Amino acid sequence: MAQYKIPVLPGDGIGPEIITEGKKVIDAAGEKFGFDVDWIEYPQGADHYLETGELISEDTLKELSAYDAIYLGSIGDDRIAPGVLEKGILLAARFYFDQYINLRPIKLLEGVWCPLKDKTPADIDFTVVRENTEDFYIGIGGRAKTGASKDLLEVSRTLYSAKFGLDIETDSEEIAYQIGMISKEGTQRVIDYSFDLAEKSDKHVSSVDKANVLSDIYGFWREEFNTIAAKHPDVKTDLNYVDAITMWFVKNPEWFDIVVTPNMFGDIITDLGAMVQGGLGLAPGGNINPNGTSMFEPIHGSAPKYKGLNKVNPIATIWAGSMLIEQLGEKEAADAIVSAIEKNILEAKVQTYDMGGSSTTSDVGSDIARILLEM
Amino acid sequence: MAQYKIPVLPGDGIGPEIITEGKKVIDAAGEKFGFDVDWIEYPQGADHYLETGELISEDTLKELSAYDAIYLGSIGDDRIAPGVLEKGILLAARFYFDQYINLRPIKLLEGVWCPLKDKTPADIDFTVVRENTEDFYIGIGGRAKTGASKDLLEVSRTLYSAKFGLDIETDSEEIAYQIGMISKEGTQRVIDYSFDLAEKSDKHVSSVDKANVLSDIYGFWREEFNTIAAKHPDVKTDLNYVDAITMWFVKNPEWFDIVVTPNMFGDIITDLGAMVQGGLGLAPGGNINPNGTSMFEPIHGSAPKYKGLNKVNPIATIWAGSMLIEQLGEKEAADAIVSAIEKNILEAKVQTYDMGGSSTTSDVGSDIARILLEM
Ligand SMILES: CC(C)[C@H](C(=O)O)[C@@H](O)C(=O)O
Ligand SMILES: CC(C)[C@H](C(=O)O)[C@@H](O)C(=O)O
Repeated sequence: MAQYKIPVLPGDGIGPEIITEGKKVIDAAGEKFGFDVDWIEYPQGADHYLETGELISEDTLKELSAYDAIYLGSIGDDRIAPGVLEKGILLAARFYFDQYINLRPIKLLEGVWCPLKDKTPADIDFTVVRENTEDFYIGIGGRAKTGASKDLLEVSRTLYSAKFGLDIETDSEEIAYQIGMISKEGTQRVIDYSFDLAEKSDKHVSSVDKANVLSDIYGFWREEFNTIAAKHPDVKTDLNYVDAITMWFVKNPEWFDIVVTPNMFGDIITDLGAMVQGGLGLAPGGNINPNGTSMFEPIHGSAPKYKGLNKVNPIATIWAGSMLIEQLGEKEAADAIVSAIEKNILEAKVQTYDMGGSSTTSDVGSDIARILLEM
Repeated sequence: MAQYKIPVLPGDGIGPEIITEGKKVIDAAGEKFGFDVDWIEYPQGADHYLETGELISEDTLKELSAYDAIYLGSIGDDRIAPGVLEKGILLAARFYFDQYINLRPIKLLEGVWCPLKDKTPADIDFTVVRENTEDFYIGIGGRAKTGASKDLLEVSRTLYSAKFGLDIETDSEEIAYQIGMISKEGTQRVIDYSFDLAEKSDKHVSSVDKANVLSDIYGFWREEFNTIAAKHPDVKTDLNYVDAITMWFVKNPEWFDIVVTPNMFGDIITDLGAMVQGGLGLAPGGNINPNGTSMFEPIHGSAPKYKGLNKVNPIATIWAGSMLIEQLGEKEAADAIVSAIEKNILEAKVQTYDMGGSSTTSDVGSDIARILLEM
C-alpha cells in the first residue's frame, strides 16, 4: 500500500473547517484506491503569528520542501493589516518553493447554477495558467516625499514630454510607487507549460497582457509568447488585452481552452472565472513546481465572518485535494473525487447555503466521501 | 441661440462612422433645444501618423485646450505596433489636459439584453470613477540584461529574503519592468470627486485596490480613501480587492452606487461593466477635467475589421455625446438624447447586429435623431 506524507496548513478563518473535509475525502479515496495518508499539521496563520510573531520561518519552509505537495486551507485575518499574512505565508511559500504555475481550472460542473444566461457546462471548461512568482507580486515599492517624489514624477512627466512634446507641471508633495518585473526565464517557463497543456487538449492558447499601455513589461511578455507560439504551429493562439478578456469570459467562455497570464492579471481574471463557474465555493487552484514542492488550495479566502459556523462550501477545497493527489500520481483516485463531487451536486440533497441547500460543511464532506466509497 | 464650437477627432477604424452618428444626434438636439454646433474636425489617427509621422503635436494640444470638450471616436490600428497610437494620442490627451476623472456609467437600459441571469435595469445602474492620469499608465519601465537585471532581481529577492528569511537563487538573464506611481494630490482629487458624486446619489462609495499585494502603491490609495471617507460620515463605504470586485460586478451589481478605482484596475473593471450593461456597443465614457478641457468617447476600440461596413452600434458614441453636451451645460438636451436612445432600443425596430437587428450604423443614428425631434 502506497504511503504519502502530506503537510497541511489549515490556516485562518474557515480554513480548518474546509481542510477537515478535504482530508476526509482524500482518506476515503485512499481507502478505496489503496493508499494511506499521514497528515502532518502546521499551525501557521493569524493565531500563530499573534502568539509567536512568526509568519513562516525558513526552517519550516526547508522542512516542507521535503514533500511533493502541501494542502493549504486559507490565509487572512481581519486583526492583521492587509498583506501581512498573505505575503508572509502564502506568497512566501509560492516564492520559496518556486511554484511558478498557478493552475486554475474554470469548469462549470453539471447541476451548478451559473450566473450567465445561455451557458452550459459544455461552454465553461477551460484552464487558466497563471504565472505565480513574478510581475507585480515581487513586493518592490515605496513612498517618497517632495524631493524624491518630484524626481519620480519628473521622470514620468519628462518621459511623456520627450515622447509627445508635452510640458506638464505638477506640485504633488507625496507619491507611492510599485515596481513589477518579469524575467525571460520566468516568462518562458509558464508559457511553455501552457503550450504543453494545450498540446494535450484543444490546442488553443490565449495570452493575456496590456501591451498597449504597460508596454515595457507586457511588450516583453508578448514577444516571448509569440516566440514560443511560433514553435507550436499546430496550436491556435490569440493575444488578448486584459480589459477585453473580462468581457470574453462573460460573453464567450466557450472560446477558451488554455489561458496563460501574468501573475496580477491572473489573480483578477480567475476570480471572475470562479464566479462564472458558479462561485468561489467551487474553485480550486494548484501552485505548482513540476520538479519541487507544490501547494493546493481553494482560491477563496478565509471568510472570517463564517469561521466556526460549519456553513461554507468545502467543494473548492475537496477539488483542490483531488488536484493534490493527482500531482502525487493517484490519477484514478483524483478523477473519482471529482466524480463524487459531481454526483453530490447532481443529487442536490446535501448542499451548503451558497448552492441553495442548508447542509453543513461537514455534511457535504461526508456525503462526498460516502458517494466515493459507494461508487 | 447658444453657439458651441466642438473639436472632433474621429480617429481610426470605425471611429469616423460612429462619430458621424454622434454629431447627427447632437445636431438634432441643438435644433430642438436651441443651440448650434460648429464642428471642428481633426485628422489625428493612424492614417495621419503614417502620412506625416505626427501623433498629436503640442501645437494641436494647445489649440484644443481652448475648448471645454472634445468628441473622440476611437484610436488604434493594426498597421501600427500596440500602444503607439493609444499612448501617443489618447493617453497623451488625457495627460495633457489633466483629465483626471474617467467617468463611466454602468447602466443597463430597458430592453437591452443582459448576459446575467436574474438582473434587470434596476439592478445594474452605477458609476465607475476611474483615476485617469497616474498609476501604471505613466509609461515608465524598461528592460535590462545580466548586470542590471540581476540588480533588480537582487532587490526583489533580497527584499523577500529580508522579510521572510528566505534565500532564493535565480540566474535569469533578462528582465522587463514597469513602474506605477500615484500621488497624494492625484489620489485625493479623484476620491473627492467620487464622494461628491455619492453625496448626490445613493451615498455609497466602493473603493478598489489590491493593498494586500501591491501594498506600497495601493496601501497609500487605501489610506487616502479612508481619510476622505472619515470626512463623509453620511456616505457608506467599502474597500474591495480588485479580484473580488470582478465577482461582485457579476453577482451583485445592485450593490454598487459609485465605484472609485485606480487607473489600471478601472480599465479592467469597466470593460467587464460594459459587458454587464449589454456590451461595448453601449458603453460611453468621459475623460473629465472639471476646470479644463474634457474629452468624450465610446469606451470600445476602433474595431478595424468593421471599418467602413456601416455595421457597428453607434449608441456608445451617441451616449458619450450626451455626456459631452451635459458638460457644456445642456442638461435638458443631454437627458433627451438618453431618452431617445432608450426609446430606439425599446421599439427594437432599428438596431445593429449586436442587438439582434440588421440595421446600419447610420440607420440607428438617424432613428435616434428622429425620435429626439419627435419627442
Ligand atoms: C490572498 C492573495 C494574496 C492571493 C493573490 O493575490 O494571489 C489570492 O487572491 C489568490 O488569488 O490566491
Ligand atoms: C486604448 C487603451 C489605451 C485604453 C486604456 O487602457 O485606457 C482603453 O482600453 C480604455 O479603457 O479607454
